[in-house]
Amino acid sequence: MQISKAVITAAGHGQRRLPLQRFVDLDGVEKTALEIIIEEVLSAGVEQICLVVRPGDQAAYAEAAGTFARMLVFVEQPEPRGYGDALYRAAGFVGNEAFIHLVSDHLYISHASQRCAQQLVETAKAERSPVSAVQATRESMLPYYGTIGGRRRAGRTDLYEIDHVVEKPTPTEAEQSLLVPGLRAGHYLCLFGMHVLTPTIFELLDPPAHADASGPVMLSPALAALARRENYLALELNGSRYNIGIKYGILMAQLALALSGADREDILDRLVEMLASRRSAV
Amino acid sequence: MQISKAVITAAGHGQRRLPLQRFVDLDGVEKTALEIIIEEVLSAGVEQICLVVRPGDQAAYAEAAGTFARMLVFVEQPEPRGYGDALYRAAGFVGNEAFIHLVSDHLYISHASQRCAQQLVETAKAERSPVSAVQATRESMLPYYGTIGGRRRAGRTDLYEIDHVVEKPTPTEAEQSLLVPGLRAGHYLCLFGMHVLTPTIFELLDPPAHADASGPVMLSPALAALARRENYLALELNGSRYNIGIKYGILMAQLALALSGADREDILDRLVEMLASRRSAV
Repeated sequence: MQISKAVITAAGHGQRRLPLQRFVDLDGVEKTALEIIIEEVLSAGVEQICLVVRPGDQAAYAEAAGTFARMLVFVEQPEPRGYGDALYRAAGFVGNEAFIHLVSDHLYISHASQRCAQQLVETAKAERSPVSAVQATRESMLPYYGTIGGRRRAGRTDLYEIDHVVEKPTPTEAEQSLLVPGLRAGHYLCLFGMHVLTPTIFELLDPPAHADASGPVMLSPALAALARRENYLALELNGSRYNIGIKYGILMAQLALALSGADREDILDRLVEMLASRRSAV
Repeated sequence: MQISKAVITAAGHGQRRLPLQRFVDLDGVEKTALEIIIEEVLSAGVEQICLVVRPGDQAAYAEAAGTFARMLVFVEQPEPRGYGDALYRAAGFVGNEAFIHLVSDHLYISHASQRCAQQLVETAKAERSPVSAVQATRESMLPYYGTIGGRRRAGRTDLYEIDHVVEKPTPTEAEQSLLVPGLRAGHYLCLFGMHVLTPTIFELLDPPAHADASGPVMLSPALAALARRENYLALELNGSRYNIGIKYGILMAQLALALSGADREDILDRLVEMLASRRSAV
């Protein structure tokens, strides 16, 4: 399995402007979220990147990509028909190869020497199978994420065989079908926004199969169909995901980067100073 | 003195994208930096807002202004000829009235019931004089700010008569001409990015007066000329300025908003949790 292509979807409602946000990365360098995401996929050996955008957003993304702009292939999602539809638009770019797919509203911090995308790609190659990254997530966060059910692979603590995928399950749904033995109580395996997939996903997302649906085409039902059809794995990465699309998501991602990176001591000093001055000012 | 107009400059190099950044404001609502700045000037009674932008940036700003977009008058700065030149472009919009001027890369948190812009406008009206907001700032930050020298107005602890204005002084320059009696040791009065000015400033910024200068037209020399020409005051506001254009500036502004606002307890909880988990992860 060769993985030389990445697809990043950036067409979602309320998500379009997030890749343009500015952050200071782990190395202390100012970058846009898009540059950080591009560096993530390049770390995994990717050579070509497709960005699925809303029509007209190309120039802003090219600017936000900085020196990476020339590597990007833009594909438009003409109508806002959902995340699954956005990914489907990249079928022509992907062709017959396996590829890595990332959303554009998440940032990742690895707790290992390999970056998160690299950990995922290595596992997909070793297992010759599609793999979605997951993170053990507390129940209160289920309204924000697709969630998987499955069984831990014998002899592994980080790899799961996926049985179900449910988009934003209710706590009751989650308790009935998505409890995974071996996790901390009250925790579920939620999608991390990072997948290695094969072109099979495009058959499962094929719009004619959804012709009766006037609503958006989601990715999770196609992933659930993938789990029924073939061996499909979930990897609990040694890292953390930060959803920058939720309230205070940008703050928490930037804090995590700052506290995990080169400027940790400086930021801790400033935090203490701010907490002290806030206390007197409030 | 009536103040019904605001001029916001947003054309600076490296500054253009900052007003588009997303924040959670004191009230816990997600807004762009531009929306927060617009609300700041509206709090001071402003009815018309001029935004000085680089050609082509209008659409992105109109989008970032949300429901305020219809209040905006756009003026282009054709060439990046400096901050003073950008302000000069708004002369036609301003006409013969006093106006409030804000930069687009600062956010403000008031420690009083009146917002910062409102405090400044009230003082300008009471004193019938141009007034620049200032903040006592430690010497190490001088490379980032215009700095004033002057004397405290008798009987006031927050109002100064300005003698000098120097853009980004060296520590030696500052010590020689900008020490203000009554401030904490090692502190100077740095510009806050918020001024009430009269059309006199446009005479002092008039490009023919700078015809020999091929370099950028700065605002500080015009403010220095204003101090020589007429009564010109500095107000130490009851509030804090956050420069979002410097490294970690967005993080510190968002942290200050979060810790001063409606979600303070929630954010403190999350900070403690993150610091605890970082310690074990690093």
